[in-house]
Amino acid sequence: MPQDAVDALVEVLDLEPIEVNIFRGVSPEEDRQRIFGGQVAGQALVAAARTVEPDRQVHSLHAYFLRAGDPRVPVLYEVERPRDGGSFSTRRVAAIQHGKVIFNLSASFQVPEQGFDHAFPMPDVPPPDDLPTMRERLNRSGVPLAPWLDRPRPIDIRHVDWPGPDGTRDLEPRQNVWLRADGRLPDDPILHTIVLTYASDMTLLDTATLPHGGSWFEPNRFMASLDHAMWFHRPFRADDWLLYAQDSPNASGGRGLARGLVFTCSGTLVATVMQEGLIRSAR
Amino acid sequence: MPQDAVDALVEVLDLEPIEVNIFRGVSPEEDRQRIFGGQVAGQALVAAARTVEPDRQVHSLHAYFLRAGDPRVPVLYEVERPRDGGSFSTRRVAAIQHGKVIFNLSASFQVPEQGFDHAFPMPDVPPPDDLPTMRERLNRSGVPLAPWLDRPRPIDIRHVDWPGPDGTRDLEPRQNVWLRADGRLPDDPILHTIVLTYASDMTLLDTATLPHGGSWFEPNRFMASLDHAMWFHRPFRADDWLLYAQDSPNASGGRGLARGLVFTCSGTLVATVMQEGLIRSAR
Repeated sequence: MPQDAVDALVEVLDLEPIEVNIFRGVSPEEDRQRIFGGQVAGQALVAAARTVEPDRQVHSLHAYFLRAGDPRVPVLYEVERPRDGGSFSTRRVAAIQHGKVIFNLSASFQVPEQGFDHAFPMPDVPPPDDLPTMRERLNRSGVPLAPWLDRPRPIDIRHVDWPGPDGTRDLEPRQNVWLRADGRLPDDPILHTIVLTYASDMTLLDTATLPHGGSWFEPNRFMASLDHAMWFHRPFRADDWLLYAQDSPNASGGRGLARGLVFTCSGTLVATVMQEGLIRSAR
Repeated sequence: MPQDAVDALVEVLDLEPIEVNIFRGVSPEEDRQRIFGGQVAGQALVAAARTVEPDRQVHSLHAYFLRAGDPRVPVLYEVERPRDGGSFSTRRVAAIQHGKVIFNLSASFQVPEQGFDHAFPMPDVPPPDDLPTMRERLNRSGVPLAPWLDRPRPIDIRHVDWPGPDGTRDLEPRQNVWLRADGRLPDDPILHTIVLTYASDMTLLDTATLPHGGSWFEPNRFMASLDHAMWFHRPFRADDWLLYAQDSPNASGGRGLARGLVFTCSGTLVATVMQEGLIRSAR
């Protein structure tokens, strides 16, 4: 059931404390070759948040993916505390496996304050309930599903624009995707931030491939996240529908850059995302 | 003379090697209260680049500003080397003053490779030579210039859209600015990247204030960069005109977020920039 998948995700995102600044996370028992980047980013944010006073909320993170994560062994998260100021706390997290850093994250937390307010408006798109699920899209496309895709997934993803797996070229580097946890999440606000961090790594880089044909089914294409940055603007629930409005200003040098704006169903801008990824095509 | 100011900037961006992974930078003799953020970001990128094989080019950086820099004493830059892989090298740099980290930067370098290519187009704006210099704008506005603004500056900045210092409210959170080093730079490509890093911190955060009146002259407004991220897409010269097309998707919680796309005069997209800053108004 989808709720079971959501509960399993919440469990994966709940780290084991090893020492004051050290935590350990595990991967779900799936047959992936490498750990999903959003999982490492989400777990690293959990580690950072555990070391910050609860009056401070995460407002940004910046991360680099350094090495492929090994899903068969735990990931150790080691937290540094560069600063605890009057309003802001900053943390650096190194994710370690087999004696090597696989991922680095920096995050900043702030005591909530008031200030100027403006936000880009939500694009005008069809509501999520009118759109097919990703599984329905995939089944209709006739593409055989990898086993990890064919079991219940924690995130319900509904593409507004669906490029399909047919290799259509010359699409605009833009796509809108609705997403939410496919079941109820506990109420703790940081968990919703973490689940969005997890989910924000799922479709973003695809945006950079749209002008160049195919999709992430392209068998001769290798894609890997290089970095990931997020800014959190306003409260939200990750188990309510969120619109992920994505575009890609650039691809060059074997890399694609993509941007995302995340809105609630009612049009509130809640987060901004940036990601660059490696995109290689075998010839 | 402007060329003297450019030469002085090049000198500030040339660090003294202390040990293999340790460098020292100084600030120009100006009467600033704190070090200009772009200077620290530029110097930190110099330190990172000095530790990377010359066949690898910087393609991205992510940084946090932690504490105000003290212009009266040098800044120590300590470089960590999280990874040297077959295609990518990653570096972390801590900028230290008075025993404390004032700034953290991570940067990634890549052996040049080929791949998909697309880029957002340049907005249609008037050419820089038809636009008044910043000094002409400021002189016309009647605002008294701080001494550091009144001497020759290394970067020539020409606002396409000039909000003026009159507190006009409800402008769109978008602005286009032409910029270049106001004199000739040496040919080394990394120096042009570093000068753009320096200059990219100068106008970006202002974009987030445009819907809220005034400008950076606003006497009761406190602004400080919180983070800075850049992605470098294609080669360019920082002493040729560059268009900095900036917008601000969000302001909330005492913070503003701004994005920038940097184009050459001929419309080539060469860099993308993101920055969040603290924006506080005294009441």
